[in-house]
Amino acid sequence: MTQRSDATPSPVHLEAVDAPGQPTPSAALDELYRSFEKELLVPLWTEIGDLMPAHPQSKAQPHLWRWNDLLPLAERAGELVPVGRGGERRAIALANPSLGGRPFVAPTLWAAIQYLMPGEDAPEHRHTQHAFRFVVEGEGVWTVVGQDPVPMRRGDFLPQAGWNWHAHHNATEKPMAWIDGLDIPFQYSAEAPFFEFGRERLSDAEHGTPDRSRSERLWGHPGLRPLASPAGGRGTPLLAYRWEHTNRALADQLELEAEGHPGTVEPGHAAVRFCDPSTGSDVLPTIRAEMHRIRPGVQTQPVQEVGASVYQVFDGSGTVTVGSQRWTVTRGDLFVVPSWQPFSVRSEAGSSDSDSGSLDLFRFSDSPIFEALGLHRTHEPTR
Amino acid sequence: MTQRSDATPSPVHLEAVDAPGQPTPSAALDELYRSFEKELLVPLWTEIGDLMPAHPQSKAQPHLWRWNDLLPLAERAGELVPVGRGGERRAIALANPSLGGRPFVAPTLWAAIQYLMPGEDAPEHRHTQHAFRFVVEGEGVWTVVGQDPVPMRRGDFLPQAGWNWHAHHNATEKPMAWIDGLDIPFQYSAEAPFFEFGRERLSDAEHGTPDRSRSERLWGHPGLRPLASPAGGRGTPLLAYRWEHTNRALADQLELEAEGHPGTVEPGHAAVRFCDPSTGSDVLPTIRAEMHRIRPGVQTQPVQEVGASVYQVFDGSGTVTVGSQRWTVTRGDLFVVPSWQPFSVRSEAGSSDSDSGSLDLFRFSDSPIFEALGLHRTHEPTR
Amino acid sequence: MTQRSDATPSPVHLEAVDAPGQPTPSAALDELYRSFEKELLVPLWTEIGDLMPAHPQSKAQPHLWRWNDLLPLAERAGELVPVGRGGERRAIALANPSLGGRPFVAPTLWAAIQYLMPGEDAPEHRHTQHAFRFVVEGEGVWTVVGQDPVPMRRGDFLPQAGWNWHAHHNATEKPMAWIDGLDIPFQYSAEAPFFEFGRERLSDAEHGTPDRSRSERLWGHPGLRPLASPAGGRGTPLLAYRWEHTNRALADQLELEAEGHPGTVEPGHAAVRFCDPSTGSDVLPTIRAEMHRIRPGVQTQPVQEVGASVYQVFDGSGTVTVGSQRWTVTRGDLFVVPSWQPFSVRSEAGSSDSDSGSLDLFRFSDSPIFEALGLHRTHEPTR
Amino acid sequence: MTQRSDATPSPVHLEAVDAPGQPTPSAALDELYRSFEKELLVPLWTEIGDLMPAHPQSKAQPHLWRWNDLLPLAERAGELVPVGRGGERRAIALANPSLGGRPFVAPTLWAAIQYLMPGEDAPEHRHTQHAFRFVVEGEGVWTVVGQDPVPMRRGDFLPQAGWNWHAHHNATEKPMAWIDGLDIPFQYSAEAPFFEFGRERLSDAEHGTPDRSRSERLWGHPGLRPLASPAGGRGTPLLAYRWEHTNRALADQLELEAEGHPGTVEPGHAAVRFCDPSTGSDVLPTIRAEMHRIRPGVQTQPVQEVGASVYQVFDGSGTVTVGSQRWTVTRGDLFVVPSWQPFSVRSEAGSSDSDSGSLDLFRFSDSPIFEALGLHRTHEPTR
Repeated sequence: MTQRSDATPSPVHLEAVDAPGQPTPSAALDELYRSFEKELLVPLWTEIGDLMPAHPQSKAQPHLWRWNDLLPLAERAGELVPVGRGGERRAIALANPSLGGRPFVAPTLWAAIQYLMPGEDAPEHRHTQHAFRFVVEGEGVWTVVGQDPVPMRRGDFLPQAGWNWHAHHNATEKPMAWIDGLDIPFQYSAEAPFFEFGRERLSDAEHGTPDRSRSERLWGHPGLRPLASPAGGRGTPLLAYRWEHTNRALADQLELEAEGHPGTVEPGHAAVRFCDPSTGSDVLPTIRAEMHRIRPGVQTQPVQEVGASVYQVFDGSGTVTVGSQRWTVTRGDLFVVPSWQPFSVRSEAGSSDSDSGSLDLFRFSDSPIFEALGLHRTHEPTR
Repeated sequence: MTQRSDATPSPVHLEAVDAPGQPTPSAALDELYRSFEKELLVPLWTEIGDLMPAHPQSKAQPHLWRWNDLLPLAERAGELVPVGRGGERRAIALANPSLGGRPFVAPTLWAAIQYLMPGEDAPEHRHTQHAFRFVVEGEGVWTVVGQDPVPMRRGDFLPQAGWNWHAHHNATEKPMAWIDGLDIPFQYSAEAPFFEFGRERLSDAEHGTPDRSRSERLWGHPGLRPLASPAGGRGTPLLAYRWEHTNRALADQLELEAEGHPGTVEPGHAAVRFCDPSTGSDVLPTIRAEMHRIRPGVQTQPVQEVGASVYQVFDGSGTVTVGSQRWTVTRGDLFVVPSWQPFSVRSEAGSSDSDSGSLDLFRFSDSPIFEALGLHRTHEPTR
Repeated sequence: MTQRSDATPSPVHLEAVDAPGQPTPSAALDELYRSFEKELLVPLWTEIGDLMPAHPQSKAQPHLWRWNDLLPLAERAGELVPVGRGGERRAIALANPSLGGRPFVAPTLWAAIQYLMPGEDAPEHRHTQHAFRFVVEGEGVWTVVGQDPVPMRRGDFLPQAGWNWHAHHNATEKPMAWIDGLDIPFQYSAEAPFFEFGRERLSDAEHGTPDRSRSERLWGHPGLRPLASPAGGRGTPLLAYRWEHTNRALADQLELEAEGHPGTVEPGHAAVRFCDPSTGSDVLPTIRAEMHRIRPGVQTQPVQEVGASVYQVFDGSGTVTVGSQRWTVTRGDLFVVPSWQPFSVRSEAGSSDSDSGSLDLFRFSDSPIFEALGLHRTHEPTR
Repeated sequence: MTQRSDATPSPVHLEAVDAPGQPTPSAALDELYRSFEKELLVPLWTEIGDLMPAHPQSKAQPHLWRWNDLLPLAERAGELVPVGRGGERRAIALANPSLGGRPFVAPTLWAAIQYLMPGEDAPEHRHTQHAFRFVVEGEGVWTVVGQDPVPMRRGDFLPQAGWNWHAHHNATEKPMAWIDGLDIPFQYSAEAPFFEFGRERLSDAEHGTPDRSRSERLWGHPGLRPLASPAGGRGTPLLAYRWEHTNRALADQLELEAEGHPGTVEPGHAAVRFCDPSTGSDVLPTIRAEMHRIRPGVQTQPVQEVGASVYQVFDGSGTVTVGSQRWTVTRGDLFVVPSWQPFSVRSEAGSSDSDSGSLDLFRFSDSPIFEALGLHRTHEPTR
């Protein structure tokens, strides 16, 4: 061996076991395994069941975080933790209980609650990680992407493709919370991330508080591409997907269904995907985002899919089943569906107090990674 | 919280430290951190340096495995370890010393030496993991892919895209060793793998020992596509890239350079990439494979690249530099270049005893993953 | 010769001329040319100047059709010409004066005024030719595409990709005129067209007069893709691009310019392209469509482009220059810009009586054909 | 009207006829038609049968040109017609008898016999038209593309994508003939062509007579891409497809069939397509090229296809059916299959005197145009 002195203990530990598909234990086999350890070698035959399962066996587990637990802790962090260069963001991430205490809601995805106090700025930086904001309640913060201030309000989805400069600015007298989704764990495990600090403070113009971003004025018109804008590269040029449009699109689908026309994913289940208007593809190269609306009292079909999804209840309430877990959920609650775990939901039947009368679920996932590489699969067991 | 009893210790462990970018330690902050732990939350500000570095900081380290150490252990495994259903393959994987003893040469890549005794069959199976074989010495095994027996000989590169049925068959009186490369760690961490067992034994026809595979007869002619073959999907339809072609292509590039024409990557450095003839793209959706030839006495420029590469010396000898490591290498030696580590090589100046008189390096990497997702970057510091 | 009796006169006629690049006339050359004629052969050297010019030399010429001339003739056709099976449509096409009296506004494009009387139906059919409608004035007709009735109103752009069943239905008490654009000449000269007759009459449901089409309810929300809809094939799933959106997008660009931000094509010149929301590409595989708005008193830069464009003045007035032609144009006027002819426009400076105060120009072209084949070029001589 | 004085006779001529789908003739209709003529308008209802047929109705007709008729005329042109600047090439084009005596073998395609005398150079130029050479007999000319001399020999296919500089050089003591295929008529009718003259004479290096081109040394190895070469744009970087490879690929397919494996298009019919090795796509953006081999005595199934094809018999003989035409053909004969005309062939049963014992047919077509635009269709009536 070359770099390791014989004194360094090997990280490889092998044990001969008497089991089907395994070589018969013997002193000679033990000796071979010791040599493997010394030379940093691991046989396939002891690992194949873990590494090459019949179908994905997620290291993550289904888990639920309640908004009513999260929000007070974010508020408390607002009091105790300043926002500034170095820490960069007052963001508190969901840590899947099976992933070793790391801030990974799933092996590929990051989900956090971010919190900004009145008048605060979160400093400018950029990174290759793709990101979005989603607002379940409140307003008053502007995300400043490439010097374009983008207002954030309840129901808005605000993507921001990697390597764009961005900062946040709370221009109001009230604190605001929202959720951040990123592909931090994916880029961490695949080893691709780059990061740069930006300017120390925003200009007065960026502290402006416009009602619409410049990106929306260029790209927010259905089916219309601004001739002056470059063809676009990685990730959407549209920086805000407003609730009024999402809400209307979902209502339209349910209305079409009521009139007897196609439009819904399955009976009583409307859904839209947030897309890059310059390509029609997913809004970010590694992250898919969607809004689902389930009519009251509807039970969706179970679905299994390669890759992880995170859901936040935007409105209404219902009962969610993920693998062997079942939870009753309500506005703001967040849960994760690990790879290949069956997922279904039943919306509350009675008189919902949600705006739409239905259960509205925001979803994001890592599906574009698998589709780009030809590894995506879905299965609907009961169909 | 919902699924965890308060008695279960949290996997999250947070500690307030007095450091730039961190909130000032206090009893109140401690209390907040305890609540984060209880609710399975982790702040960004304690993790950002690790998760969002200025450039990729690989968890893997540069490492070298010597062929002269590997081959005797594979031979010994040939005596002690049977090949059959369950263990599936007599394959022994390189374990990067920094990756916890797992059989991962890099966070995304698997590299193993496989060994088959005279008359042995490795059983048929299929999996979504993409794979290839590369032969540094010997011959006599046929890889049977989709019932097409493909002979394996020194210098041959034999890719096999995911979800194709495959088995191996040693039709000779001599054992044979070769290396396997797969994307097992990537699919393991992204949670995409599927696997199925195949038939218990191959047919007599598949035990045939043709000199060329059917795939080569259809797809092995330069620039010619068989009209009868489907347009192709994921991964190359050509199952063998023969050394005679690779060797001639490299010789042609150096000859062009000698005549004063473009052709080489840099002075004295020829290189070809193995490609899917139906698309011109990388031979596998997640794995790039190349052969490099360095004229005697040539020093290549250092290069940094997102993603990991594994090299095997096919012929000749030289000195390799990876980050702060430097090794003298010779035929069969394998080493790994982790993400963003600078890599360069100097070929031996004197009278090489290699076939080509040069240093020939086989390389494979995970670059297609990053290119598909827009995350690929390279840097040549001294240019 | 094989199929032609010697008695049939050859369509080939060759004449030896004494000119640079031509062989010296002689009796022997004459004899050779007679043999060429007999064998149906034509030498390159007599044709190269015409066939392979330094840049495109259009067979078409710039030409203007005035709305005030067209509309009365369409009205008169409404009185004299019934609409029904066989003739199919009361459409009257613009015939470029240099194209032999064929109904080709340009070598690749068809432009016609169509006219439907109160209560009339234009019968259902489908064809591979791609088509759109554009409405410069009036309302009251529903285009029924795939059984989805789509209302047509001033300013609306209504594309309809090839091979979709379609009919038109005037549900009101007033006649209505609009323009049709198609790639009929392109498919005619390339020899690709297919055509089928549809049902003899529409259903009652298709005679409905909804305010929005079903396609708009599914696809008309900015950046939102309906999950239930197929990924889409050739041509946009969105059947109507409404004036309210187009108008606002153009106003937004001029507003951005006024605030000092990028957004316009050149100073005072806003423009949007109608796009397929499922791909971000041109709305039809062979036809590009755009709306341009020129602030009062602005002179645009001349542009040359491979391929032909047809413009209709939607609002305002101005002076248009195409090659050596110059016209003053106003609402409804149509003109053609042949391939590679320089085009520029000056909007009327004074108090325009248009809705927007500006000159609004609808444009369609054959650019997607050239872009798909790598033959597109533009040139801006004065920049 | 705007540009035309009333004195100019209109190119439009309309006649009212009493026929189904036509308006009833009347004095009023006559008056309307006169107004249409004056205003350069043509109604759809008089033209629809011609412009929008049920399926493509080619303006071209099937036709055969015999090599034994062509070659002597080319030889005679070699004596009478010099090659030089202005005329550019001693190329004699096939003129379809239904296309008005223009040098168009089909509405989109050009096919010519080119002839170069000993020691002659055809001058350097470039054009956007895509081109290839195919050699049915002889050798001794080098096509110099981008200063890379490419030898031409029997059976070789030599493509040359648009806008590459090129010249021809006969370095031997014997004249040589070959055929040229281009998309001249397509670019002429679509109005896209550009052309530039090159240098007046080639350098000594370009007058070299290498056995292989530089392009083959870089790109002529199966499945291997040179790392140093740019990713490539429009059209293949490989400038010669050698007969030895084509011949072997066809033989391999028939051998696979004889062994009971898939490989041929239909029984006894092998075929390869010439492809761009950097993309796997057609060798030129507008032209497809293939070689077909029919075993002796085999009758192929009739096929109809959108777009035109031109065939040259490379070897053997047989009977060809195109629409209602039937010819016996032999080496060198050229024939055209217009759009949507059924095509089939029967190879000669007896003891062929061809090299392969079979009928070998070279084919080129305009299919990539239709595939790029979604207009391609095929039909096999008897299957």
